[in-house]
Amino acid sequence: MFMDITGKEIYKFCEELFPINRSLTGNGVRETLSIIKRELKDLKIHEIPSGTKCFDWTIPNEWNIVKAYIIDPDGKKIIDFRENNLHVVGYSIPVDISMSLEELEEHLYSLPEQPDAIPYVTSYYKESWGFCLTDSQRKNLKQGTYKVYIDSVLEKGSLTYGELIINEGCQEEIFLSTYICHPSMANNELSGPAVTSYLAKNILSKSNKRFTYRIVFIPETIGSIAYLSKNLDVMKKKTIAGFNITCVGDNHSISYLPSRNENTLADKAALHALEYSNLDYQRYLYLDRGSDERQYCSPGVDLPVCSVMRSKYGTYDEYHTSLDNLDFISSEGLYQSYEIYNKIIDIIEINKIYKSANLCEPQLGKRGLYPEISTLQTKNTVKNMMNFLAYCDGEADLLSIAEKIETPIWELTEIIDSLLECDLITVSN
Amino acid sequence: MFMDITGKEIYKFCEELFPINRSLTGNGVRETLSIIKRELKDLKIHEIPSGTKCFDWTIPNEWNIVKAYIIDPDGKKIIDFRENNLHVVGYSIPVDISMSLEELEEHLYSLPEQPDAIPYVTSYYKESWGFCLTDSQRKNLKQGTYKVYIDSVLEKGSLTYGELIINEGCQEEIFLSTYICHPSMANNELSGPAVTSYLAKNILSKSNKRFTYRIVFIPETIGSIAYLSKNLDVMKKKTIAGFNITCVGDNHSISYLPSRNENTLADKAALHALEYSNLDYQRYLYLDRGSDERQYCSPGVDLPVCSVMRSKYGTYDEYHTSLDNLDFISSEGLYQSYEIYNKIIDIIEINKIYKSANLCEPQLGKRGLYPEISTLQTKNTVKNMMNFLAYCDGEADLLSIAEKIETPIWELTEIIDSLLECDLITVSN
Amino acid sequence: MFMDITGKEIYKFCEELFPINRSLTGNGVRETLSIIKRELKDLKIHEIPSGTKCFDWTIPNEWNIVKAYIIDPDGKKIIDFRENNLHVVGYSIPVDISMSLEELEEHLYSLPEQPDAIPYVTSYYKESWGFCLTDSQRKNLKQGTYKVYIDSVLEKGSLTYGELIINEGCQEEIFLSTYICHPSMANNELSGPAVTSYLAKNILSKSNKRFTYRIVFIPETIGSIAYLSKNLDVMKKKTIAGFNITCVGDNHSISYLPSRNENTLADKAALHALEYSNLDYQRYLYLDRGSDERQYCSPGVDLPVCSVMRSKYGTYDEYHTSLDNLDFISSEGLYQSYEIYNKIIDIIEINKIYKSANLCEPQLGKRGLYPEISTLQTKNTVKNMMNFLAYCDGEADLLSIAEKIETPIWELTEIIDSLLECDLITVSN
Repeated sequence: MFMDITGKEIYKFCEELFPINRSLTGNGVRETLSIIKRELKDLKIHEIPSGTKCFDWTIPNEWNIVKAYIIDPDGKKIIDFRENNLHVVGYSIPVDISMSLEELEEHLYSLPEQPDAIPYVTSYYKESWGFCLTDSQRKNLKQGTYKVYIDSVLEKGSLTYGELIINEGCQEEIFLSTYICHPSMANNELSGPAVTSYLAKNILSKSNKRFTYRIVFIPETIGSIAYLSKNLDVMKKKTIAGFNITCVGDNHSISYLPSRNENTLADKAALHALEYSNLDYQRYLYLDRGSDERQYCSPGVDLPVCSVMRSKYGTYDEYHTSLDNLDFISSEGLYQSYEIYNKIIDIIEINKIYKSANLCEPQLGKRGLYPEISTLQTKNTVKNMMNFLAYCDGEADLLSIAEKIETPIWELTEIIDSLLECDLITVSN
Repeated sequence: MFMDITGKEIYKFCEELFPINRSLTGNGVRETLSIIKRELKDLKIHEIPSGTKCFDWTIPNEWNIVKAYIIDPDGKKIIDFRENNLHVVGYSIPVDISMSLEELEEHLYSLPEQPDAIPYVTSYYKESWGFCLTDSQRKNLKQGTYKVYIDSVLEKGSLTYGELIINEGCQEEIFLSTYICHPSMANNELSGPAVTSYLAKNILSKSNKRFTYRIVFIPETIGSIAYLSKNLDVMKKKTIAGFNITCVGDNHSISYLPSRNENTLADKAALHALEYSNLDYQRYLYLDRGSDERQYCSPGVDLPVCSVMRSKYGTYDEYHTSLDNLDFISSEGLYQSYEIYNKIIDIIEINKIYKSANLCEPQLGKRGLYPEISTLQTKNTVKNMMNFLAYCDGEADLLSIAEKIETPIWELTEIIDSLLECDLITVSN
Repeated sequence: MFMDITGKEIYKFCEELFPINRSLTGNGVRETLSIIKRELKDLKIHEIPSGTKCFDWTIPNEWNIVKAYIIDPDGKKIIDFRENNLHVVGYSIPVDISMSLEELEEHLYSLPEQPDAIPYVTSYYKESWGFCLTDSQRKNLKQGTYKVYIDSVLEKGSLTYGELIINEGCQEEIFLSTYICHPSMANNELSGPAVTSYLAKNILSKSNKRFTYRIVFIPETIGSIAYLSKNLDVMKKKTIAGFNITCVGDNHSISYLPSRNENTLADKAALHALEYSNLDYQRYLYLDRGSDERQYCSPGVDLPVCSVMRSKYGTYDEYHTSLDNLDFISSEGLYQSYEIYNKIIDIIEINKIYKSANLCEPQLGKRGLYPEISTLQTKNTVKNMMNFLAYCDGEADLLSIAEKIETPIWELTEIIDSLLECDLITVSN
């Protein structure tokens, strides 16, 4: 059903992208997108200049950082951006001063309840600077004068994102969105762009696609707002289902977060894939939202966008810390996410509307559709065929029939092929 | 409320019809219908010639059988159609040959798990022959040469069915369907035509019918398909409720199988009759269907047809064997089915729409509707009257009001008569 | 939020009104209304002449009573209307005769199961007379000749009711109805007019009312029917929510009785007030109705009227007896009812429809709406703000959004003020 991709490949892709210092803007994003473009050659890289108005927002200045460190009273470099790019608060302005520990403390961030984790902190819209460190390290800082150095640039530039349109020009689109603004963290978020890249490769490999696929790699929030501000009209007209792909790397749980509407084709397909694959999953409310569905589902935008995740952002201890690293995710976790999303996409692709060509049941026997030798499997096939025909009224789509007859939609494809071949059903759309 | 019919009469009618060898077509069907016509003199017997196209189906050849037996190597007649007409596979072609036990085995049908039951087997649409016997008997067959003889005729003829239209010409119809294609089995199916015959007699005895009653005695599947192919237009226009009457003879359980739509007037009336008679019943899904509702409810046909049964086909051990005999059904079982269906029909007959003639509550006292002496019964009557009036808005039908006010619809008829007499309500339809 | 009123004030008002002999008509009603008018100077007193047709009903004769007593065979006055106005059956005709105990018994009413309670009995529409007494007293009556005297007048006059229209002329109205036809009983019913009077005072004290308030003090049943017969057109056009205020004095339980429609704005606001104030309450069905909602919700009238009560009429032992006295109600019970109804009215007043001024989420930070210091309270405020904006689509009203985001509507008012101030939302109605 899917391309011959292994979880190890996706994991390796994560390893490659992991060390890059991504942020809302800047060269880390560009480098990330250029590696993704190596895999997806038609990916277009867009730049939106700082200062551009996007609905209520403005594209911020571009941030780049070369190096940053703290030298303690003994002259020892105790924190170094090169060791872990979480050490510097995102969007920190340049600093080159000496200060007492007391003054420094106001710029330090650590997690007393997770003494070995470096927290992830940003200050996109308020000029500021800071360092993040483990609470263990922080507790051992001695009194004295510290030298603080951040060699960063925060100035007019642009916001960078990637866009891949596959099978352009269809009347209906499927939308996939993932974000590329977090520095070295694995589940949230490298898993997102990694799995999405491989989903894109698989979509590219398929023939007979009924839909255009709009796939974006953007910075979270400002990126989705900016993208919507440029593309809302066409997206509102064409999008039949969309997915915000994030937190898809670990193997601890599966989560479903509905769209605001809660009952879109995206939601139905996602739930069908989860339910009929017998996967245990946690069902969240839209009130639990926290990523780009906040924009995609906002009033007036109202795109049919939901999320299937593994451990959901905000619900696991490692979230937004240095512990959300390559050990937290796994080949298995990434691959199963890839499988689930492929299944969801397949569900939407096969979800046509069929109509029985006859009134009353057709006579299956004269067409060889009624097996002469009855086995458990053939009995099940006949049962599914008769049940499908019983609801095949030219109005209900295949997905709703599958739910009605309590059967995975993918078990109906062979049956439908047989019935089409015998002219017992027609395709309505 | 009902004609003075006893369960014993219905049971006796089953006894009379039991021995006849019915099948999809043939003289057994004609004999059965002629006995029913004795009870229902306006029953019309229709014949549809073999070869007639009915939607996707074709009327098969007519089958008649005179005798059939097997003689064992010792010259002993071990299986004889005259002893039990289940012994011969339905639609068996003529045979007159000798063969080894090994060859014969391919034409024998028995049930290892029910060693004393003769199974019911047919081969309507594939030319074949065979014998059915108990597994006990089969196990004792000795090696040697068997003489096999079937004196049957399978040739162009016709399919026979009975149709009774009562109170013809109304704008709305109630439809009752039962089948007459099974040889000697009692619950499935003699109970069906027997109870239906007595229902028809009772309907005939009633005055003031609001509806036409279309009652058919047909062979299953091909019969309903053929009947629909001739009558669909008028049935779609007029049918407000229909019932497929089958498996109504035993006394072990009550079953309800919904229409495909699940919420038609037929379903509502059936459920109201069951619920408010405080009957325990098993509620099935349309996915559990297995009789002529498969045709009546098929897409594009969409008639409001459901079933109230006793032990449902396919759910009891005796089903489709010689053990589904006159001992399996009972006078009590038949009579209660008769009662339930009469109740359902009455519900539909009285289910008019009424409208309160006044704004606000009427003054019951000045019309003597408010009892001077308050007993538990009069209190209940007043409560029902006020509750009925509280929902009597010219839109809700009586059945939905009865459900709303949690009262059996049949307890409202006297109240309605009083209110009509005092001009406190009017009939909307 | 509310006027500075105490439960003691409301209780004192009940004490003042308690002794008056109210009935469907007569001077007790007028005296009651004149005391209410002292508190609500714009209350209009209306008189409808006896004999006036009101839908199916006719305004009865007016009843007034001066004195009434029974003198026992020993010449002792054993029952005296002056001691308790429940002693005389309401609408008793004048009597001045002597009779044996046996004859008298036919005119006596007592409660064997509540030997110390005087029951409340009326005979509005059938000319009659009678006395009510405790069963203890009745059991001690001795044989002999009794002198019975009732000095009453039942003759053409009028039905009296009070009407207060506050903020007249709005397109939409809130309707409050309470009744003033019961003699000395406290929960049912003095609590009703007392709490309603103080609600009216509070409404009068509020500025910026969006609605007209139509508040009526009427006799039950005939009063509401008469009022509707005169005002139905305007009420149907304008009433967005109404409440029948009765049994609001005790402190034993809280009850909710829905409107017939069950899902009107009145019902939603009442349920929201109860649910989000974490009050335990008993939810009744419309089938449990028993007061003027019977008229207000009748078919064709269909006003959105429900009730929040304390101990519901008919559910407590003291109901309709002399035990429903000033001890049964309490300052606390009256005040909490006053509070709940004020809350309900406030809910409706603030229940506007808002629309987000932007597509996508607004940038809260640049407007100072995103707190710099995050506390549990500010976090909750931001969460509520974002949740509110997420559903603020110009179609959903505030109440439905509050339910959706599982937050008391009153916690959203400050948020809405901030958002309006920043032009982040607009009011749609």
